[in-house]
Amino acid sequence: MAKTIKKGERISNGVERVINSDTIKYLGKQVKVSGWVDSVRSHGKIIFIDLRDMSGIVQLVNTSDIAKEIRPEWVIEAVGKVSKRPPNMVNPKIETGKIEISIENLKVLSKAKTLPFSINGGGYEINEEKRMKYRYLDLRRKRMKRNMIERQRVIQFIRDFLQKDSFIEIETPILTKSTPEGARDFVVPSRMQPGKFYALPQSPQQYKQLLQIAGFERYFQIAHCLRDEDPRGDRQPEHTQLDLEMSFVEQKDVMRLTEDLFINLVKKLYPEKKIQEIPFPRLTYEKAMKKYNTDRPDLCKNKNNPDLLAFCWVIDFPFFEKDDKNKWTFTHNPFSAPKPEFMNSLLKKKNIKNILTTQYDIVLNGSEIGGGSIRNHESKALEAVFEIIGYKKKDIKDKFGHMLTAFQYGVPPHGGIACGLDRFLAMMLGEKSIREVIAFPKTGDSRDLMMDAPSEISEEQLKELKIKVIKKSKK
Amino acid sequence: MAKTIKKGERISNGVERVINSDTIKYLGKQVKVSGWVDSVRSHGKIIFIDLRDMSGIVQLVNTSDIAKEIRPEWVIEAVGKVSKRPPNMVNPKIETGKIEISIENLKVLSKAKTLPFSINGGGYEINEEKRMKYRYLDLRRKRMKRNMIERQRVIQFIRDFLQKDSFIEIETPILTKSTPEGARDFVVPSRMQPGKFYALPQSPQQYKQLLQIAGFERYFQIAHCLRDEDPRGDRQPEHTQLDLEMSFVEQKDVMRLTEDLFINLVKKLYPEKKIQEIPFPRLTYEKAMKKYNTDRPDLCKNKNNPDLLAFCWVIDFPFFEKDDKNKWTFTHNPFSAPKPEFMNSLLKKKNIKNILTTQYDIVLNGSEIGGGSIRNHESKALEAVFEIIGYKKKDIKDKFGHMLTAFQYGVPPHGGIACGLDRFLAMMLGEKSIREVIAFPKTGDSRDLMMDAPSEISEEQLKELKIKVIKKSKK
Repeated sequence: MAKTIKKGERISNGVERVINSDTIKYLGKQVKVSGWVDSVRSHGKIIFIDLRDMSGIVQLVNTSDIAKEIRPEWVIEAVGKVSKRPPNMVNPKIETGKIEISIENLKVLSKAKTLPFSINGGGYEINEEKRMKYRYLDLRRKRMKRNMIERQRVIQFIRDFLQKDSFIEIETPILTKSTPEGARDFVVPSRMQPGKFYALPQSPQQYKQLLQIAGFERYFQIAHCLRDEDPRGDRQPEHTQLDLEMSFVEQKDVMRLTEDLFINLVKKLYPEKKIQEIPFPRLTYEKAMKKYNTDRPDLCKNKNNPDLLAFCWVIDFPFFEKDDKNKWTFTHNPFSAPKPEFMNSLLKKKNIKNILTTQYDIVLNGSEIGGGSIRNHESKALEAVFEIIGYKKKDIKDKFGHMLTAFQYGVPPHGGIACGLDRFLAMMLGEKSIREVIAFPKTGDSRDLMMDAPSEISEEQLKELKIKVIKKSKK
Repeated sequence: MAKTIKKGERISNGVERVINSDTIKYLGKQVKVSGWVDSVRSHGKIIFIDLRDMSGIVQLVNTSDIAKEIRPEWVIEAVGKVSKRPPNMVNPKIETGKIEISIENLKVLSKAKTLPFSINGGGYEINEEKRMKYRYLDLRRKRMKRNMIERQRVIQFIRDFLQKDSFIEIETPILTKSTPEGARDFVVPSRMQPGKFYALPQSPQQYKQLLQIAGFERYFQIAHCLRDEDPRGDRQPEHTQLDLEMSFVEQKDVMRLTEDLFINLVKKLYPEKKIQEIPFPRLTYEKAMKKYNTDRPDLCKNKNNPDLLAFCWVIDFPFFEKDDKNKWTFTHNPFSAPKPEFMNSLLKKKNIKNILTTQYDIVLNGSEIGGGSIRNHESKALEAVFEIIGYKKKDIKDKFGHMLTAFQYGVPPHGGIACGLDRFLAMMLGEKSIREVIAFPKTGDSRDLMMDAPSEISEEQLKELKIKVIKKSKK
């Protein structure tokens, strides 16, 4: 029988807390358990409480009136004896389904109001803005817990795989310099150098190349990348990528390494899934466009089978294309090398539309999950790229002078790839949106509804930064 | 004999490159090696080249005139036969000291100008701004390579240790909301909501607490934290911390976990070091100040022994102190709980100066390497903290409404710690400055001399962000 219900005071009887899934090891013994009340059921005089913690559910039993006060999502701590359930009460669906705990002492650690939505079930039917506002409740959902755990498993698998293969993870800065990567930079005003700004990294592209020049022949990083993009589909202002770079390699080496990584990852973590074709088929951009009318072809031969994974590579992309102002721009990455047979065209800036890049994109069931290239490490060739896309000599020096200088001190042939982990994870877990695999995602227009960011800052802060807001949002 | 020296073309004879340290396995066989020319020595007609790659040095031997062109730091690729060195030529100091490679085919992949400074030796004597400007060359230094490798080893040890102990690593956002942590926030203007700003995280404090409310009972993250601080000593605008948080714990639990982590880390990775006292001694703030006149006492009994590690804990700090305007401010963390016996004083806002916090700082040889606390999860008590430090009701609601709301839905008792990895690493590696253990550090006034950041942004960017620079820096 529960002796006390008292809020805020913890039981300090020397008994260490046992996590729910471990209670089965304590049959006949007294244990202390803690967690959230998942449900309360009253059968006549007997109260059954399903107690939820990170490890799972355990059933508490009590006959006192006091336990009747308990409501779902309250946080409680209970001491009691572990005993076998009567045979007809066994629940084969849960790990602790053969036992229950008879409460001897029960304390309420924290009460809870009725949640704004149910955390049972998938939750897809709930208004997503509401789910995001109360993300800390939405994450109590079994599916969301699984997604976060799977996210860590995948990332840790990648780390282990690459470290065993002599890769070293190196952290690169968040406060950096603007670099052209096809999207807008987020910028950060400098207080100490008024009028100047840092840019947040769209990718560690330049740093990883400089690390090759430094002699770290096999670099990787689980990197946070930030892009100030217009709202479109399933994008996020922040995403996580596996970024890697290798020296003394050719296209085939980076592709082989990447392919090995994905094959091993799927076999180890998702053995129920089947990779349709190994080695991954390779298509030229031209062929992909002709045959599938997209550079992200979905080669999956059975669209009804969610466990069938059709990876493929797309290669031989044009290096340049015309933008909407009829000016040349790069299709993928200005730091890529052209295919060797087009180096002369690039240096002479001739036949620009025919120049092919060493770019390789990896596509899974019609979604691009990564892309990379062999890098251009010839100063002159890199300058030619920037000239073709319309940079003036002075701009090139201001923006990329450090790269061109670095190339003069002994640069190994190098190349790499970056793979978007959010999209890959969503596909592995059968989620349609990457927001389902990110702990604290933002809305399509980049708002954090839980924290209420972005938000206004004080006049004092603006003054210190020596900037002024010209026009305020009406939102 | 070298047949060709040709720049830019790789040898494609089907021989896979062998890394330098592996060449000893190929005695009598032909191998292809690649790397940087560490040194060239000419002994009469014979040229000796020390070739450096990520794995180490191997000696190449050649008698042709062509090899004489080779200069230090050029990147080359060589094919040749591995043979034993004459006994008098053996170099016991390097792994490959018993063998050498007779060059049959040599290619220059990239030439190098004379470096702006020597990369042999420690490099401490070189002007540090110069080292930072050419960081990609400075990182070629043996010491800097070691530091980066050790950094990864330490971080991976921590990840493995915590994952084995049921912790889950969860990534929290970079674009977030301003929160009071004792330093200025870096802010990011929002293009989509003009006039509003994101803040970069000074720590994941609120997210990790919300993850406890979500039921992730054991969270950690190797987190990038950003603080816009005034130049002072060895600070960096970005630092890396081990951030962790646990539910259903008391002060002793977090302290024990942290202590176990450091003890195991030192024993495994730095067995030559000795921890002076285990368990780590605990001092109250009052005692530390009285006896050592500092809250970071250096308890080391032999200051001449760099391998002697004197860890200690400092506890029982005052929660509040008066700032220079004679207003109350928090000493450590506004989200901390007071010690239980002071909860009433806090709620009544009485005897403010006597209120002690549950804060615990971990100190190593006189440097603070981490700090944490049990958190305040009572809405009213958290409101009282913010009222004492001068926040108005409306400000509290605007800034922390989400936390106060979250506390209404079932919050477990929780606490955690954050440890600065840069400082700890510097101490383990005998480095005086944390800049020596960061791949791309910034200057004291937060400039990146290699990338030239911060820098000016275009009028177009400013216009899109709806902000205006009031006063430009003269730098």
